[in-house]
Amino acid sequence: MTWEIFGIIGTIAFSISGAIVAMEEEYDLFGVYILGMATAFGGGAIRNLLIGYPLDAFWKQDSLFQIALLSMTIIFLFPNKLMKHWKRWENITDAIGLSAFSIQGALYAQQLHLPISATIVAAVLTGTGGGMLRDILAKRKPLVLRAEVYALWTILAGFAVGSGIVHTAVGMYGLFVLIVVCRMLSVQYNWKLPHKSLTNQPY
Amino acid sequence: MTWEIFGIIGTIAFSISGAIVAMEEEYDLFGVYILGMATAFGGGAIRNLLIGYPLDAFWKQDSLFQIALLSMTIIFLFPNKLMKHWKRWENITDAIGLSAFSIQGALYAQQLHLPISATIVAAVLTGTGGGMLRDILAKRKPLVLRAEVYALWTILAGFAVGSGIVHTAVGMYGLFVLIVVCRMLSVQYNWKLPHKSLTNQPY
Amino acid sequence: MTWEIFGIIGTIAFSISGAIVAMEEEYDLFGVYILGMATAFGGGAIRNLLIGYPLDAFWKQDSLFQIALLSMTIIFLFPNKLMKHWKRWENITDAIGLSAFSIQGALYAQQLHLPISATIVAAVLTGTGGGMLRDILAKRKPLVLRAEVYALWTILAGFAVGSGIVHTAVGMYGLFVLIVVCRMLSVQYNWKLPHKSLTNQPY
Repeated sequence: MTWEIFGIIGTIAFSISGAIVAMEEEYDLFGVYILGMATAFGGGAIRNLLIGYPLDAFWKQDSLFQIALLSMTIIFLFPNKLMKHWKRWENITDAIGLSAFSIQGALYAQQLHLPISATIVAAVLTGTGGGMLRDILAKRKPLVLRAEVYALWTILAGFAVGSGIVHTAVGMYGLFVLIVVCRMLSVQYNWKLPHKSLTNQPY
Repeated sequence: MTWEIFGIIGTIAFSISGAIVAMEEEYDLFGVYILGMATAFGGGAIRNLLIGYPLDAFWKQDSLFQIALLSMTIIFLFPNKLMKHWKRWENITDAIGLSAFSIQGALYAQQLHLPISATIVAAVLTGTGGGMLRDILAKRKPLVLRAEVYALWTILAGFAVGSGIVHTAVGMYGLFVLIVVCRMLSVQYNWKLPHKSLTNQPY
Repeated sequence: MTWEIFGIIGTIAFSISGAIVAMEEEYDLFGVYILGMATAFGGGAIRNLLIGYPLDAFWKQDSLFQIALLSMTIIFLFPNKLMKHWKRWENITDAIGLSAFSIQGALYAQQLHLPISATIVAAVLTGTGGGMLRDILAKRKPLVLRAEVYALWTILAGFAVGSGIVHTAVGMYGLFVLIVVCRMLSVQYNWKLPHKSLTNQPY
C-alpha cells in the first residue's frame, strides 16, 4: 500500500516533468501527453522488454495511466498559475519517484532470478529510462547523461537489492529513504559526477 | 483482401516519406532504406513488442518488405522527376496508411484481449510510431508531436475498436473512411491541436 | 573459442567508441558508461527483441559486461595518453567487431528458422544498431546512415548466412575475414554509398 502511494507520487512527478519539457519545446497537446506518458511509463516498459518480464502487468496499471493523464491535463490547462506551486514540490516528488521506481525495477529482476548485472540495469532503466526517452523525443541531450548525480542512486538501489544486502520489507523502506535523501542532497549541494571532455583536444 | 490493399498503399506512402526525409538530411542509400523501413514497419514492431504480440507475424510480411524496398529504390533513382507526381498523391496515400495501420493496430490488441488503454496505445503506435522513429533517426523533432492533427485520429481508431463501438466488418470500413476523411480535412484546413508554450516564461 | 575472442575484441572496440563519443559530448561518467554499454550491447538487445530470441542469453554475458566496463574505465582515466595508441588500433578492432557481431546476429536468426529478410535485419541490427543508439543518445545524426560503407558489409553477412551459401565452420571464418577486409578497404579508400540530396531542390 505504502509502495503504491510512492508509485503514484512518482508517476505524477515524472508525467508532469515530461509535460513541462513538451511545453518548453512548443509541442502540441498530443506531444504533451506522449512525452508525459513516455517519462512516467517508458522506463518500466523498456525494463520489462529487456529483462523479459511479461507485458501483461504493464497494461494493468490503468489507474496510474489515468492519474498521469489527469496530472498532465491540469498542468496543461493552468501552467503559469500552477507552475509556481509545482516548482516547490518538483524535487522531492521526483526523488520519491526515482527511489520507488528503481527499487521496484530491481525487485522485478529479482523475481525472474536474473544475475546482479541485470538487476542493476533494471533499476537504472526503471529510474532513468523514462527521462532519457523524454529527452530523445524532445531532441535534447539526455539530462541524466551529462548533469547531476541522478543515475548513481539507481545503481545503488540495483546493487543493494541484487546483491541480497537488502531483502526484508524494513530494509526496502530504509533503502527507499536512503535514496530519497541522497538524491535531495545531490540537488541541494549540486553534486556532479566526474567529467572528462575530449572536445578540441588534439589526440 | 481490401485491407491488404490499404496496407500496401500505406506501406508505399510511409516508406517513401522515410526515404524523402533521409534524402533531405543528405543520408546515403543505406540511410534511405533504413529510414524508409523504420517509417513503414517501425510502428508495428514497437506495438508488437509493447502489447506482447508474437514477432513471427512480423517476419511473414515479406511481400510488404519487397514493396517498400522497390518504392524507395524508385524514389531514390528518379527523385526530381517523380517528386512532382508524388506530391500530388502524398496526402491521400498517407491518410490511407494512417487509417489502415491504426485500425489494424487496435485489432491486434483486441486479439490479445487487452484493456482499452492498450488498444488505444496500440492504435497510436502503429499509426504514428514509425514516423516518430523516422524523425529521431533524422535528428528532427517528431513532426507528430508538434504540428498537425495526425495522432488524434489514431486515438479515435483505438477508442472506437477498443470500446466495442465498432466491431463489425462494415463498421470497420466506415471507421476507415471516417479517419481518412478526418485526416484529409485536417490537412486541407490546416487544423492544429492546442499549444501552450513555456519558453521564456518567468515562472 | 576463436569466435569468443573476436566477440571480446569487438566488445572492447564498440564500448570504447561509445565512451569516446560521450566524452566528446561532455557527458559525465554515467553518460560514458551508458553510451559505451549501448554501443557494445544495444545492437544485440534490439536484435533479440525483434527476432524474438530469449533475453536470458543476453544476461549470461557477464564477462563481456565486465570487459566493457573495464575498457571504458581505462579510457576515461587516461584519455589523452591512451588515445594516441588507441587510434592506431581503432579501425581494425572495430572491423573485427562489425564482422563478428553481424555474423553472430545472422546465426541467431538462423537458429530460430526465420526467413532471409529477418536474417539480414538481424545481421544489420547486431552490427550497426549499437552505433545508431550511441549516436541518438549523443544527439547526433547516426554516422552509419550518412557516411562510410559500413552497413553494406552487415547486409552481406546476413545474406551469405541467410541464403545458406555459407554454412560450414570454415565458410564462417572465410566470411569473417572477407567482411573485415571489405571494411578495412572502405576505410582505406574512403568509399561512399551513393547519396541523393533533396535539400533546397525546388520540386
